[in-house]
Amino acid sequence: MTSMNLLGCVAGLRLVDHHCHGVVGDDVGRAEFESLLTEAGEVAVGTTVFDSLAGLAVRRWCAPVLGLAAHVSADEYVARRGEVGGVEVNRRFLRAAGVAELCVDTGYGGGRLLSPARMGEVAEARAHEIVRLEQVAEEVAAERPSPEEFGDAVRARLTERAEHAVGVKSVAAYRAGLALPAARPSGAEVTAAARRWLYSINDDAAPRLADMTLHAFLAWCGVDLGLPVQFHVGYGDADADLGRGDPLLLTGWLRATAAAGTPVMLLHNYPFHRNAAYLAQVFPHVYVDVGLATHNAGYRAAAVIAETLELAPFGKFLFSSDGFGLPELHYLGALWFRRGLDAFLRPGVDAGEWTYGDAERIAYLTGAGNARRVYRLDQV
Amino acid sequence: MTSMNLLGCVAGLRLVDHHCHGVVGDDVGRAEFESLLTEAGEVAVGTTVFDSLAGLAVRRWCAPVLGLAAHVSADEYVARRGEVGGVEVNRRFLRAAGVAELCVDTGYGGGRLLSPARMGEVAEARAHEIVRLEQVAEEVAAERPSPEEFGDAVRARLTERAEHAVGVKSVAAYRAGLALPAARPSGAEVTAAARRWLYSINDDAAPRLADMTLHAFLAWCGVDLGLPVQFHVGYGDADADLGRGDPLLLTGWLRATAAAGTPVMLLHNYPFHRNAAYLAQVFPHVYVDVGLATHNAGYRAAAVIAETLELAPFGKFLFSSDGFGLPELHYLGALWFRRGLDAFLRPGVDAGEWTYGDAERIAYLTGAGNARRVYRLDQV
Amino acid sequence: MTSMNLLGCVAGLRLVDHHCHGVVGDDVGRAEFESLLTEAGEVAVGTTVFDSLAGLAVRRWCAPVLGLAAHVSADEYVARRGEVGGVEVNRRFLRAAGVAELCVDTGYGGGRLLSPARMGEVAEARAHEIVRLEQVAEEVAAERPSPEEFGDAVRARLTERAEHAVGVKSVAAYRAGLALPAARPSGAEVTAAARRWLYSINDDAAPRLADMTLHAFLAWCGVDLGLPVQFHVGYGDADADLGRGDPLLLTGWLRATAAAGTPVMLLHNYPFHRNAAYLAQVFPHVYVDVGLATHNAGYRAAAVIAETLELAPFGKFLFSSDGFGLPELHYLGALWFRRGLDAFLRPGVDAGEWTYGDAERIAYLTGAGNARRVYRLDQV
Repeated sequence: MTSMNLLGCVAGLRLVDHHCHGVVGDDVGRAEFESLLTEAGEVAVGTTVFDSLAGLAVRRWCAPVLGLAAHVSADEYVARRGEVGGVEVNRRFLRAAGVAELCVDTGYGGGRLLSPARMGEVAEARAHEIVRLEQVAEEVAAERPSPEEFGDAVRARLTERAEHAVGVKSVAAYRAGLALPAARPSGAEVTAAARRWLYSINDDAAPRLADMTLHAFLAWCGVDLGLPVQFHVGYGDADADLGRGDPLLLTGWLRATAAAGTPVMLLHNYPFHRNAAYLAQVFPHVYVDVGLATHNAGYRAAAVIAETLELAPFGKFLFSSDGFGLPELHYLGALWFRRGLDAFLRPGVDAGEWTYGDAERIAYLTGAGNARRVYRLDQV
Repeated sequence: MTSMNLLGCVAGLRLVDHHCHGVVGDDVGRAEFESLLTEAGEVAVGTTVFDSLAGLAVRRWCAPVLGLAAHVSADEYVARRGEVGGVEVNRRFLRAAGVAELCVDTGYGGGRLLSPARMGEVAEARAHEIVRLEQVAEEVAAERPSPEEFGDAVRARLTERAEHAVGVKSVAAYRAGLALPAARPSGAEVTAAARRWLYSINDDAAPRLADMTLHAFLAWCGVDLGLPVQFHVGYGDADADLGRGDPLLLTGWLRATAAAGTPVMLLHNYPFHRNAAYLAQVFPHVYVDVGLATHNAGYRAAAVIAETLELAPFGKFLFSSDGFGLPELHYLGALWFRRGLDAFLRPGVDAGEWTYGDAERIAYLTGAGNARRVYRLDQV
Repeated sequence: MTSMNLLGCVAGLRLVDHHCHGVVGDDVGRAEFESLLTEAGEVAVGTTVFDSLAGLAVRRWCAPVLGLAAHVSADEYVARRGEVGGVEVNRRFLRAAGVAELCVDTGYGGGRLLSPARMGEVAEARAHEIVRLEQVAEEVAAERPSPEEFGDAVRARLTERAEHAVGVKSVAAYRAGLALPAARPSGAEVTAAARRWLYSINDDAAPRLADMTLHAFLAWCGVDLGLPVQFHVGYGDADADLGRGDPLLLTGWLRATAAAGTPVMLLHNYPFHRNAAYLAQVFPHVYVDVGLATHNAGYRAAAVIAETLELAPFGKFLFSSDGFGLPELHYLGALWFRRGLDAFLRPGVDAGEWTYGDAERIAYLTGAGNARRVYRLDQV
């Protein structure tokens, strides 16, 4: 097929997915499939989530993986998915993604999702854990420490969890926005913020952190651990409040943490991916991807990747799928990343703008090498 | 001509223009023509508005409609326009637009513009009215109600006006910005805001509303009516203050109104069209267009449309021209929308990314079907 | 070479670079070369600045100017640069840029950079000076005037400096952001701000201005002088704080200065170039460029230029390289501007969207004519 006639160095590249989630371990019905396919929570009357670039890509590219003709109807696709069964669906897509290593965020989705270890087995890949900072803080909070104990308890728990992880992740963007204070919160500030939070927790509900001081404290904990600190940035579901998710809001904090040298990984970034690419150019410790946008924008993912590479150095741009729940998303994330990279690199090779060797190096760095280096995956 | 060799499903599509204004009923001189062609109020010394993509499109695509060769000079074009006469110019362009239904905002421009009914006659289309919320509030204010009466008087007037309308429109973006408070203003807040405003109105001038509480009140009135609520978003003239016109500022208000289910139509959106598309994906009641940008960006409209369709579901994206004053704008809006849709759909058909049937469905939904469904035009 | 087969009107165009800096007069080592090539201050471990579109362009397009094959390695390139020597390197690239006139910002970089006069000699071009407003204020401050004298002293010094200049430049974006107050600061406000600043200056350090009132005062001084006032906007190094560099923050100030008619030149603008283009469309005194972004984005510069021309009238868009230190940047700025213009104009000519004569006029205006008119270069 013409459209998949990729450069050899792109087609053959075994990717490192530096940020994804587990898939649902068992069967998924139509309603759940639609709700997991894009970031739309609820679908408007008279519309379907299949009427989108994401939906077209499922019918075009996922159908053949399940033995169907390309372009089958949504109904046929979902029916076939049920026949094949969740376990086999997971196996087919995760293997077809061509991923050598996965970094799996375990902070959301709970027991229905496969663990990193299971993800690795099913995908025939090495799998690593990304620990979600807020999840650890909420776990500690549920144990009712005193406000004075809270900071140390979180640090201790994080150190423990981090032993088996390659990175940590902040969802400050979802909870309070990315305008983290530049200065490291003092111990007294952490205690005061912990007091406010802990005393407000309702016994009947799981603790939910949304306090700028504590998000900043957690992010600094990540910096101190020396493991790459991932940030959700930009695009997400209706809870995300995109207006406070612009990575430029993080500028002061990035300036404050540059000297520490701990890598900061800006995830997703869409539609602020050019802003994120700027940060990746000017701050030595900042890295970017456009995961999540890739499988949502589908056919248009190439445009998003190209815009990001205007300023993002090739040593600072990474692949992630941000796949969650459905293995189609891990597969499509990888597919659109490869196609976007090909669409970026091939015309340059053809026109003599750069050499095939350059393309090979850029493909390797962005698709796998940067993640290997930054997460030190060869030392795991 | 190669460039107009559109997909059949696009070329033959009778559009629904879900947001436009009337055209000037009589002749328009050169100065007025230039001032209406783009959003530039005044043109810089040594330049002309024809030196723009909008101007090139007039010379290329409008000239033949008036019987001229493509690419005639601006002078020849304007001279020919005068010869043909305003009435006939309106007739030719409005019919050439290929629009089946028009939703006409009657809130601005007054008596020189054709009414919705006249627009429909000239265009050989069904025409519907969009009532401007602020215009109704200003009309009520001019009658000097007491602050206590103001809210009810506005509601009553709106209900009356809405009987003959298919939607309402807010220009909060122009007057106070889009950061509407999420919570519905209380009766006391509306009265207090009305008091401040009504007492400040100068007897010598027409009342002009610019109060965030009252804009929010009006938008909620629209929600309560159940008619689609249009918002001017982003791009406009020098009065617009684009910095407070980002649709993301509306996020809290959209979250608060989601449960009501009344459709919210984000108009124009440029250069925040990706932000708007995100809102259309994640909120079930939100819809977007890129009207106004289409005829200003001309040859580049296709790029803007493609960017919007990265996240906007095909069931949530609509056509509008936002044509105002000059029928060329209604015509060019339709022309560039068709061409942009073609540029988006055709390569996908050719490459086997989606089928011609998919393209047909997407063209129908975005060009007409979504508007028919959301505004319930078949029930009018 | 196919990719440089430019339209004749673009290839033959002698450009006016309306904003650049001097180049280093003598030799430049590898470390300095890398630090000057992009806006990255420091390069991340395991990466090189050559792994970027800017780096690929040096190896592809600059290597032949030094007599090397295209695509040589970074090591070979830098070694060859050393052999040729800084003086000859400057001569080759500045002449190869094909620039007829240069407007050189003298406010930063000091004695190591060539003066405007020397730049002109080396480039075989006419050279003009752009006076940096903050540099003049800092020079005056270093002479320890009283706060009451400060405003008049600055005005007098600016008038003196401006006699030999064609424009002035503000770096408010770097120091305090672009949210200048709309109203002109009163004399008392200027004195009060000068007092705060002057009393805070440490005897051991050069004065550094970062006070919104004084930046606004300086910008108004520029308006009063009647010379075009350049603003750094958007993209810059890690000090820039991109979040406060959006040109929309300047909207109120632009509205306040429109009546004066003094041209305001928004420089760089990336990634806010569409916002800047909007301002150029709606305010008669506003002009834009995408300098700096051009040589950083390299192969992608064409996309940035095309986006800007969606709204920017052709009479309001200019060429600048923003080259600083390395003459490669002046050369690449010109190369990518020409290629971007060609990529924008040629398909339109080929498809009959506009005529070759239109393309010729657009190329002349944007590449040279607008700058000649706005800076009145024919009267210098």
